[in-house]
Amino acid sequence: MEKNLERIKAAELQERLVSPEEAASWIQDGMTLGLSGFTRAGDVKAVPFALVQRAETESFKVNVFTGASLGSDIDKLFAEAGIVNKRLPFQAEPAMRKKINEGEMLFVDHHLSHTAEWIRSSVIEPVDFAIIEALSITEDGMIIPTTSVGNSAIFAMHARNIIVEINLAQPELFEGLHDIYDTGKQGERSPIPLTSVDDRIGTIGIPVDMEKIRGIVFTEQKDSPSNIVPPDEDTKIMADHLLEFFRSEIRVGRLTEKLAPLQSGIGSVANAVLHGMIDSEFKDLEVYSEVLQDAVFDLIDAGKVNFASCCSITLSEPKMEQVFGEFENYRNKIIMRPQEISNHPEIIRRLGLISINTALEFDIYGNVNSTHVSGTKMMNGIGGSGDFTRNARLAIFVTKSIAKNGNISSIVPFASHVDHTEHDVDVVVTEQGYADLRGLAPRERVEVIIENCVHPTYRAQMREYYDEALTRGGQTPHVLEKAFSWHASLAQNGTMMQKKEQPI
Amino acid sequence: MEKNLERIKAAELQERLVSPEEAASWIQDGMTLGLSGFTRAGDVKAVPFALVQRAETESFKVNVFTGASLGSDIDKLFAEAGIVNKRLPFQAEPAMRKKINEGEMLFVDHHLSHTAEWIRSSVIEPVDFAIIEALSITEDGMIIPTTSVGNSAIFAMHARNIIVEINLAQPELFEGLHDIYDTGKQGERSPIPLTSVDDRIGTIGIPVDMEKIRGIVFTEQKDSPSNIVPPDEDTKIMADHLLEFFRSEIRVGRLTEKLAPLQSGIGSVANAVLHGMIDSEFKDLEVYSEVLQDAVFDLIDAGKVNFASCCSITLSEPKMEQVFGEFENYRNKIIMRPQEISNHPEIIRRLGLISINTALEFDIYGNVNSTHVSGTKMMNGIGGSGDFTRNARLAIFVTKSIAKNGNISSIVPFASHVDHTEHDVDVVVTEQGYADLRGLAPRERVEVIIENCVHPTYRAQMREYYDEALTRGGQTPHVLEKAFSWHASLAQNGTMMQKKEQPI
Repeated sequence: MEKNLERIKAAELQERLVSPEEAASWIQDGMTLGLSGFTRAGDVKAVPFALVQRAETESFKVNVFTGASLGSDIDKLFAEAGIVNKRLPFQAEPAMRKKINEGEMLFVDHHLSHTAEWIRSSVIEPVDFAIIEALSITEDGMIIPTTSVGNSAIFAMHARNIIVEINLAQPELFEGLHDIYDTGKQGERSPIPLTSVDDRIGTIGIPVDMEKIRGIVFTEQKDSPSNIVPPDEDTKIMADHLLEFFRSEIRVGRLTEKLAPLQSGIGSVANAVLHGMIDSEFKDLEVYSEVLQDAVFDLIDAGKVNFASCCSITLSEPKMEQVFGEFENYRNKIIMRPQEISNHPEIIRRLGLISINTALEFDIYGNVNSTHVSGTKMMNGIGGSGDFTRNARLAIFVTKSIAKNGNISSIVPFASHVDHTEHDVDVVVTEQGYADLRGLAPRERVEVIIENCVHPTYRAQMREYYDEALTRGGQTPHVLEKAFSWHASLAQNGTMMQKKEQPI
Repeated sequence: MEKNLERIKAAELQERLVSPEEAASWIQDGMTLGLSGFTRAGDVKAVPFALVQRAETESFKVNVFTGASLGSDIDKLFAEAGIVNKRLPFQAEPAMRKKINEGEMLFVDHHLSHTAEWIRSSVIEPVDFAIIEALSITEDGMIIPTTSVGNSAIFAMHARNIIVEINLAQPELFEGLHDIYDTGKQGERSPIPLTSVDDRIGTIGIPVDMEKIRGIVFTEQKDSPSNIVPPDEDTKIMADHLLEFFRSEIRVGRLTEKLAPLQSGIGSVANAVLHGMIDSEFKDLEVYSEVLQDAVFDLIDAGKVNFASCCSITLSEPKMEQVFGEFENYRNKIIMRPQEISNHPEIIRRLGLISINTALEFDIYGNVNSTHVSGTKMMNGIGGSGDFTRNARLAIFVTKSIAKNGNISSIVPFASHVDHTEHDVDVVVTEQGYADLRGLAPRERVEVIIENCVHPTYRAQMREYYDEALTRGGQTPHVLEKAFSWHASLAQNGTMMQKKEQPI
């Protein structure tokens, strides 16, 4: 314990050590919690568990705000215990997803760069307790985060009370990696002084009023590893298409072999696409992204990526062991920022990012659905995809052209939920090919999307829809009463295929 | 003529004086033109007319890029002459709209802040001829724009050739009003050094390589006046609702009586809403917008607005006469910027704008359609509404709850085209009331939208749709096969009203 106390360098805070149970007992019905954690990394573990235990004998509900998704089954336990009133801004957990879709809890699906603005300007409920995982607390009371920054800084700065979970299982070498910057209020702020991916603009920890730190808990539980699956044949082909697109941009002089700072969304497809660059000719790459997955470290190992800025590091189990075990090799190539900064439109536009995110479905005009299965059921949330897509140099979406043994076409006549509009989407990629939509009118986009991206099984059916739409005319021809007929067919017959063709 | 030549201070350029016909004769089939002009202001007039004349005896097509909409019937004449291959990024002309919707010309409906990026990085066709209206050309070859900046600077800097139309009918007092700033390339640029609405960051004219100025034409034709209609009973009520919302924000401490820099879209409704502030308690207001319409000058006259930044000034005929006639009264309260800067996400987010734009329709979850009548037929284009909505402190949309004698409800189950997603829209206002959607989950939004915004004639019908949707469940309940049934009913029966109720 004495050794552990060294992690609390501000001596006056050492007496605030409490058990997770005691800390959890302070939380009251109706309160709002701001939890650290972004894509399973750097989430608080002990106090949430203790809170769930309390729910066994007590009835209460709280609002749960986070950076993004949590690991350690916390969202699952929260959902099953029924203690969440409102969840914001992102989740990715099946049990919670079920509760959300049954209308048993509220989910505000929010752009990840915007939550900090809402907290700062008191638009949403004030945070009663910020509960933040840390490596340590400095002498002057700065909280040093762990494997994610997420919204921890804004929560801690604006919360009424702070509980710190010092996690002894997190890699101590992360100290010095974080770059905490607060923009200040809208209308009173200066330009964010970041013009290069590796610029350091802030402090290595979260400066807080020490008086607000009500309790400190020790824990020793590792982050949940990521649950991505390795690249498969289709994702490899998609990566090849994307590389081919980059090469064509280089040929016409719009990019060089260094490309531009890369952002890549969470998930297996985006990871596979980055993975595809390992054996490519591209070099001296930079990453300016939310979360670093396995592929970025493989790219660093391969000498392809020079520097990576992120707000979270989420790795598979073996990769976590390797990277954290030899972290001195990576330490000077990585910086971790608040998600407000990793996803900030000012920076994304200035640096001119290449943004690669996964679509759930998209339509013949390039409108993208990132969130809702058949327009109604929430999957995970928009995450940062809107922050990046809206402001990037190149907004790219990737998805396999079909799903569920071919019963679902990922390209549909009309996106059943629109998260990214035709105005924002530059390039769409499936294993069939890519469609570069920039500078094309809607009627031009249809042609390249059908030819290059739609699975052959659905091409004729799509052309039939579009041909009928053309008879109605318009800038964006549609047969509105049939716009969702593919989704209706899926619901009724288990397949979007409307003729007697066999699913593949 | 000698007096006119004084407008060309660079002596070497004086010999490049040509007739509009000669200038137009240089334009060849397949070329791309970059024309000055934004919301009917500062458009070139003489060369386009001469080009249309050429079309009487010659067959050719050109791409026409502009700032935004043109006046002087140019888009009408272009459309009728059939000489436009592709139009970008905005238009607002009935004859052109018809051609677009008939598929006879291509229209790329583009965010107004983004076209400059596309030009700068050669994503779209290079501009063969920039044709720019000017007050004068300085000794060192800077082009001084007139009543709009729009995309003139980026066109002129990147075009192969420049034709200047010096318009003697435009107010000379505009010289010194413009602030031309070029961001430079993505990845190489610095922060835009603008932290206050009245900051001057650039030059008073467009610096160009004088060699590129191929011809100069004199003209003396005034801008087309705006075609807005005065506030009516409904728009006055909408303005009152909006002011009530602002007051409630002040009560909870989120705003002060100075509000925040205001952006207001083009059109009668947005103008009426600003007009509603004249007799309000709000004061020391600032405007950071694209286009200044009549109401902003009324607000300046009323001592309510201290400063207004814009990229265009578009006034009604009497207002134009008054404002231009006594422009020395307004001169130190106005600055004109390129649309890339007036609409830049970096600035919009930094200043924390209050953004007010007009919706064509919106749905029960807050998705907004700004562009497409019944999802297919282009009205005008998204304009700057996406630039502002995506990055503002407060993204507000206004619309009357019904149209066409009540046969159309502006609030529908599912927006038939989505230009602004539920993630981006903060507040919606109709003459019925306002709905503050911030921090609300979709199922919460439905309640406030139906209660506060939907016209009473459509409320029961909307609730019926939503009740059925609820039986299907989901984060965003829908009955997909009926999602566009209101639009289908309108197409078939001339009304969205599905029961036997009488239209009001």
